[in-house]
Amino acid sequence: MKILAIDSSGLVASVAVVEDDRLLGEYTIDYKKTHSQTLLPMIDALSSMIELDLNTLDAIAVAAGPGSFTGLRIGSATAKGLGLALNIPLVGVPTVDALAYNLYGVTERICPLMDARRNQTYTGLYRFSSDHSFEVIHPACALPLEEIIEVIDGSGEPVIFLGDGVPVFKEQIEKSCKAPYSFAPAGFNRQRAAAVADLAQIYIKEGKAQDAGDFRPNYLRLSQAERERLEAGGKLDEPTV
Amino acid sequence: MKILAIDSSGLVASVAVVEDDRLLGEYTIDYKKTHSQTLLPMIDALSSMIELDLNTLDAIAVAAGPGSFTGLRIGSATAKGLGLALNIPLVGVPTVDALAYNLYGVTERICPLMDARRNQTYTGLYRFSSDHSFEVIHPACALPLEEIIEVIDGSGEPVIFLGDGVPVFKEQIEKSCKAPYSFAPAGFNRQRAAAVADLAQIYIKEGKAQDAGDFRPNYLRLSQAERERLEAGGKLDEPTV
Repeated sequence: MKILAIDSSGLVASVAVVEDDRLLGEYTIDYKKTHSQTLLPMIDALSSMIELDLNTLDAIAVAAGPGSFTGLRIGSATAKGLGLALNIPLVGVPTVDALAYNLYGVTERICPLMDARRNQTYTGLYRFSSDHSFEVIHPACALPLEEIIEVIDGSGEPVIFLGDGVPVFKEQIEKSCKAPYSFAPAGFNRQRAAAVADLAQIYIKEGKAQDAGDFRPNYLRLSQAERERLEAGGKLDEPTV
Repeated sequence: MKILAIDSSGLVASVAVVEDDRLLGEYTIDYKKTHSQTLLPMIDALSSMIELDLNTLDAIAVAAGPGSFTGLRIGSATAKGLGLALNIPLVGVPTVDALAYNLYGVTERICPLMDARRNQTYTGLYRFSSDHSFEVIHPACALPLEEIIEVIDGSGEPVIFLGDGVPVFKEQIEKSCKAPYSFAPAGFNRQRAAAVADLAQIYIKEGKAQDAGDFRPNYLRLSQAERERLEAGGKLDEPTV
């Protein structure tokens, strides 16, 4: 099974092509350019480098949120466009789950932190069991940091943090986290499309692929525009992407 | 500290730029093209995508062997050329150490396997201690598979295999390995330049950087041409790359 995976949920843009147990290629950029400038050229460069015939793809995997609203829309629109054009299914992988999966097989619990602004973090809590199955202890959510720290401190077991929320919340973690903690190093602490692809392969076996037309990202919160509209007494539109 | 890392030791070509605890970009290809066709264009594409001024680099890290002789020569020549031109040091990272480092923080011992042909594997045995320090149990070596399996079975503790030697030796492992074992999934089972960069950062702190002119890859074995020359009663030249 050959999968093209896309993650543009945060500051990072990452694309990967995986075939069964082999990563054919991966291209990841963490730079100030917007994903609308980088994502399609990266897919194009990678496809050309591995002489990928898009018609041989079996599925498109995409980081399905939470994350940057614009980033998720660019990633989802790209994935849906490819999925519809190629008539292949989409697999949405929760962004923070894929981020946690970067630390495949680690001993500790894993806490991904994305900066969600407004004093919140997109987070969750995960672990790998001894047979490497990936367990969700606390599913993806938008919380103030102190609430996920409470969950972590509840059991007191060691935890490893990663994600673009780490530089934002590091001082607060150092002040408040009582459980033993550490931070993942550079090669492992941001979104990687290869992790999205690996989780997608598991999801496909669990029957979680869906029609490209039906896929919707999971923003977890309302956008600023939607909040302001509701506050002004307006109604929300049905989301299309 | 900003590092450009290169790994072309095996079938994979991978380049990455890391600045302290942040991966600015990574580009990895596992495809049949030769590294002489892919490596410099990949460095060029990545540099352009992150608007990298090569003059801001502090060091070049390179997978220093063992591995494909041609691959190591292409990687080393590229790294030495850049290091000499930019007047910055080189950090050689043993290929199998970097391969093992892909599984940052895993519970088990880690056994990278590269296909070394002639019934041998480039291998080694590693573990992460509970504080995530990276321990070399058995350093990089060229061995028949059964000899590294003997080392693994000696303690009987669980082990996780990765590398392009896995598809070559899988059947033999399944027949002979008595310790509990597993195989790393697609996103984690081949060379990644980000792992080379992360290990290089540790090596630099340990004072292991060297002048670009002094760097030599560690082939671990003689090349076919050298063996044949010796067998025919000839002498070996002093290696220059």
